Amino acid sequence: MILTYAMIGTWRMAHEGLTAAMADLKQGGRSTDAIETAIQAVEDYPFFKSVGYGGLPNQQGLVEMDAAFMDGDTFAIGAVAGISDVKNPISVARQLSNDHFNSFLVGAGASQYAMFNGFERRNMLTERAHKLWAKRVKEINEKNLSPYDGHDTVGMISLDQQASMAAGTSTSGLFMKKPGRTGDSALSGSGFYVDSEIGGAAATGLGEDLMKGCLSYEIVRLMGTGLTPQQACDQAVYPFVEKLKKRYGKVGEFSLVALNAQGQWGVATNVEFTFSAGNEQQAPAIFMANPGPDQTTIIEPISAEWLAAYEKRIKAPVD
Amino acid sequence: MILTYAMIGTWRMAHEGLTAAMADLKQGGRSTDAIETAIQAVEDYPFFKSVGYGGLPNQQGLVEMDAAFMDGDTFAIGAVAGISDVKNPISVARQLSNDHFNSFLVGAGASQYAMFNGFERRNMLTERAHKLWAKRVKEINEKNLSPYDGHDTVGMISLDQQASMAAGTSTSGLFMKKPGRTGDSALSGSGFYVDSEIGGAAATGLGEDLMKGCLSYEIVRLMGTGLTPQQACDQAVYPFVEKLKKRYGKVGEFSLVALNAQGQWGVATNVEFTFSAGNEQQAPAIFMANPGPDQTTIIEPISAEWLAAYEKRIKAPVD
Repeated sequence: MILTYAMIGTWRMAHEGLTAAMADLKQGGRSTDAIETAIQAVEDYPFFKSVGYGGLPNQQGLVEMDAAFMDGDTFAIGAVAGISDVKNPISVARQLSNDHFNSFLVGAGASQYAMFNGFERRNMLTERAHKLWAKRVKEINEKNLSPYDGHDTVGMISLDQQASMAAGTSTSGLFMKKPGRTGDSALSGSGFYVDSEIGGAAATGLGEDLMKGCLSYEIVRLMGTGLTPQQACDQAVYPFVEKLKKRYGKVGEFSLVALNAQGQWGVATNVEFTFSAGNEQQAPAIFMANPGPDQTTIIEPISAEWLAAYEKRIKAPVD
Repeated sequence: MILTYAMIGTWRMAHEGLTAAMADLKQGGRSTDAIETAIQAVEDYPFFKSVGYGGLPNQQGLVEMDAAFMDGDTFAIGAVAGISDVKNPISVARQLSNDHFNSFLVGAGASQYAMFNGFERRNMLTERAHKLWAKRVKEINEKNLSPYDGHDTVGMISLDQQASMAAGTSTSGLFMKKPGRTGDSALSGSGFYVDSEIGGAAATGLGEDLMKGCLSYEIVRLMGTGLTPQQACDQAVYPFVEKLKKRYGKVGEFSLVALNAQGQWGVATNVEFTFSAGNEQQAPAIFMANPGPDQTTIIEPISAEWLAAYEKRIKAPVD
């Protein structure tokens, strides 16, 4: 077997955490640790407004978060939905994955478990997120806007030199969601799935539509039949987008990333989508994906202009 | 197209609700209504100790319930996890399935939604369930028993004469679970899945293991390749049981039921399992399934002796 390592994560926000975790994988670090540390970095950065600290709150102003962790060797899963006031939901999810029973906790029970097990308590609402929330409430009232906007999950898949794979997700969910709303991120098969003998996949986008298709499971299954990650993503995602349009009448935005046990990756999306990926041969880099013709995906390196505009946008003053 | 109707549900407890709903389907009733009314009947019956009223409470003595509803025509899903003090979780899940956003609610948010939308509030803890809980707490303390036992979800699939299908699940979850614990029942692809053009499947058993395999989705997918429901159940479930034993080291008890768009049904299980099923040709009846040789399932009509013993057992005095 070729000893290699690789990692992929959704959105530009994945990049710094993923790059640091890849350095650990290069030194022989484990895929499980890589997932946790990389996602912790995204959760901790205050300017990413859809994950962890700085994440946008629900309708009532509370930051409620979802996270999951899956070990591709054993299929062990830990997950939390609607957890609040906890610094690193991904770490709670990882610890839960060690238990055979009670490994998916929701709401107050999830927060209570985290406190009882010594996880760090933190007010996850930043002043910036509070201002963005207040501004949105005002806009909804004044302009009769749809309240729901923004739902970017960080989802990652990792492969280590022992051929073990892992997957993780973390999100503060749909902006202005109703209290207790959860999406696909904590749901096995929809938000994530990984099998070390095949590969893994993770999703971001409108969870309510993603759970209609179990796309992460389907991508892994297709890779198991011999498809490359890119073929698997294209074949799982684009026909499902068409099916949802026909059967449900509409379809939300979503994007999926995949990595196989050989360190190759792929993505598919129905919207402009950035991601970070790297493997032994190729240093971690940020890419942009867009839906292409005939159920394909167009992937390009990210431009310096886009990155500069992004940096400016996430830190722009909130009036 | 042959106009037919059919229904299948997990466990002996499904039978009365399913029989009444089948009578509606015969008269041209809708599959969606059949799922809701049949599962309501199970939720309302006080002697079924793993679903709705009379369901066993969590570690702290609170009855926390999970339920989901899926429309096989549109893939619309509604779900609740960790909801409490609500008479019919299946009806809350069904109403949520009408929303494109916020259609899966957990914890206090789910209960709050139910109250705000006029659902009936009810203390779901019966005196009998309270006694069973207290007895178990005592046994755990005195005999050092594993606290976890019992996790029977009612899961149903229906087909109506307009060729529409629906799926639903409802459970009070793992007995003595930690507060906030949820299993597979509210999770699309794991606890249930249905596509009116193919068929549907639903699961019962240890949710923590079921979500490792996305078996409901997989059974529907296999039926979509032309397999009968029985072939699809056998091919999805038994290899997965072997895979989990090998990769995770152990496997909980679980059972799956499936129904296709032609009204044929199938089941697979790794434990003694009862279910109720019927179609246009065959009146609803209770069957018993057991794992057979070479990854097959042995299905027999239920015996009068078993039914009498069951009736006695569920109503036996609690000392």
